[in-house]
Amino acid sequence: MTSTIPGFWAVIPAGGSGTRLWPLSRRAAPKFLLDLTGSGQSLLQTTWSRLAPLVDDRVIVVAGSSHADAVRRQLPMLAAESVVAEPTPRDSMPAIGLAAALIERRDPDALLGSFAADHLIEDEPAFHAAIREAVVLARAGELVTIGIEPTGPATGFGYIRQGAPLGIAEAERGRRVEEFVEKPDLETAKRYLASGEYRWNAGMFVVQATTLLELLALRHPDMVSVLRMIAAQPDRLYELWPSLTAIAIDHAVAEPAAAARRVAVVPADLGWDDVGDFQSVAGLSDGHGGPTGIVALSGVDDVVSVDSTGVVSAGSGRLVALVGVEDIVVIDTADALLVTTRDHCQDVKKVVTTLAEQGRTELL
Amino acid sequence: MTSTIPGFWAVIPAGGSGTRLWPLSRRAAPKFLLDLTGSGQSLLQTTWSRLAPLVDDRVIVVAGSSHADAVRRQLPMLAAESVVAEPTPRDSMPAIGLAAALIERRDPDALLGSFAADHLIEDEPAFHAAIREAVVLARAGELVTIGIEPTGPATGFGYIRQGAPLGIAEAERGRRVEEFVEKPDLETAKRYLASGEYRWNAGMFVVQATTLLELLALRHPDMVSVLRMIAAQPDRLYELWPSLTAIAIDHAVAEPAAAARRVAVVPADLGWDDVGDFQSVAGLSDGHGGPTGIVALSGVDDVVSVDSTGVVSAGSGRLVALVGVEDIVVIDTADALLVTTRDHCQDVKKVVTTLAEQGRTELL
Repeated sequence: MTSTIPGFWAVIPAGGSGTRLWPLSRRAAPKFLLDLTGSGQSLLQTTWSRLAPLVDDRVIVVAGSSHADAVRRQLPMLAAESVVAEPTPRDSMPAIGLAAALIERRDPDALLGSFAADHLIEDEPAFHAAIREAVVLARAGELVTIGIEPTGPATGFGYIRQGAPLGIAEAERGRRVEEFVEKPDLETAKRYLASGEYRWNAGMFVVQATTLLELLALRHPDMVSVLRMIAAQPDRLYELWPSLTAIAIDHAVAEPAAAARRVAVVPADLGWDDVGDFQSVAGLSDGHGGPTGIVALSGVDDVVSVDSTGVVSAGSGRLVALVGVEDIVVIDTADALLVTTRDHCQDVKKVVTTLAEQGRTELL
Repeated sequence: MTSTIPGFWAVIPAGGSGTRLWPLSRRAAPKFLLDLTGSGQSLLQTTWSRLAPLVDDRVIVVAGSSHADAVRRQLPMLAAESVVAEPTPRDSMPAIGLAAALIERRDPDALLGSFAADHLIEDEPAFHAAIREAVVLARAGELVTIGIEPTGPATGFGYIRQGAPLGIAEAERGRRVEEFVEKPDLETAKRYLASGEYRWNAGMFVVQATTLLELLALRHPDMVSVLRMIAAQPDRLYELWPSLTAIAIDHAVAEPAAAARRVAVVPADLGWDDVGDFQSVAGLSDGHGGPTGIVALSGVDDVVSVDSTGVVSAGSGRLVALVGVEDIVVIDTADALLVTTRDHCQDVKKVVTTLAEQGRTELL
């Protein structure tokens, strides 16, 4: 049994466009609102389910204003004030910062953990254990991140270089973060992997709300003032929000704090996946069934395969027939069809770019 | 200018299911009714246009009863009696044989040429010239076929082994046919090609109507009696037709006649194409335009390509996006989608077989 962590809040920034998952992921129905694993739950719902045992009803979801209603529909158990609609996109720092300011007003000693709405974690007990250690470190004043055990020389993630153990009781795994590094090229990623010193940065942060705002105030004092003003007078959200700088929490807080040796990491092996592209989705969906060699994300009865392998989403009610194609990815929707291969899933976002350039906004 | 050939009739058996062109070609809309080249004309209309300069209104199209109305709509210039609806499929011999019997009644000295409704010929003047020579030979009592100059060791066609020149005036190219041979394997096809003695059998026959029926009567006298009976009393078509044996003209007449040295060939290089599969269709459609590397059979504005090559028919009004796929074939229709490669186009018929086995007749 998992018990909740007193004073610990979950913040779920529900953003990201998921353009590599087009045409399933759209502006109006982004990745976090989709059930990409066939579990019957969207990634957002899965994220909430994973956190609820730790926080009870202490949750704040920050979503774009065009998605806030969908978030409320998917998570009807949330209180009205638990869903915050951003008037305009301002990247992750204002979103998480506003949640911190709101939480700080409710409980000056509160801690928060911020977790993307569109990632998956296979090993929930390991996740809960890592968060409990992170909370111990956060109570000691650290900005704490979770360092994901790399399973390969990935070039799509940022990395965390970990330093010496911190030796804090009940957080034995905790280590100093030497630095955050940007997405590396393949050679660098291989070197990181071989060294054993690097971890994937999954964008998870556990910290006291007040500590986060103090760290932010070191470089962006005006932003902290505005965020606390909105938290005190929520009616002024639409008036004050546009003045906030669009910036990611990594640049605004995490990297400078690491340089100031204020960041800790809890290394963990969680079965984490960012569900970044169809290659990733296929790996999560091996239980979906389908003809031999085919992972059917949906519409399994509408797939006919002759000597083919790959991933198919037959979501439009039409028959999808594959003949002699290998490692193919076919995503069939009512108004758009994608045909690519497992090796080219990263390039799907180029289609979205092209459609945007062509002004075909109805397909974005 | 081309002048018509007195007493020469064109017979167009409009059959064949075109299963390798599924999902464009369907039972209700078979290959010959489709515009597969982007010319604005169906293959049937193109066939008629090619023959009209030789025959004027002396044309008989024999089609399945479910397609006869579509034939009439596509060729509204034809007289009512020029479209014959077969009550049930009986392969090519009864269809062409009935046309011969009908023609023989109108003109006992008439000649006929039989030409598939769903092939293409690029060099029309060369075709007309070959037919004129064939007619000369047919008047001399020969069953005459056109021997297509092979452009490669094709395994999808039957071959004609040609013998000595016949030395008939105004048909200087005419040669004896030694034998018809079935579709060869690749090694045999290469040997045929290297020998220079073999030609592709495109199923074109030119012959006096009476000669054809006499040759048929050698082995199938009852069939000839029934065909002449129907020609005399068209009202009895539905009563008498079911008694006819289903057999191809090749087996019923051409092969035995070749053994009896009654068959001649006019070798010709016509730019002939049987439009057998999407590989073939793509080769005919290079003028269609489309993004770089892509032949768009339809819906060119609905195709987005990123680093891809191949053939796309975007016929459903939906966007078709290709990312990093090579030599791909994507045929998008309202109720079915095909994804294959140029090298696997021959196997598309296996999808049709599978759907038939599954009882999904609405998709056939």
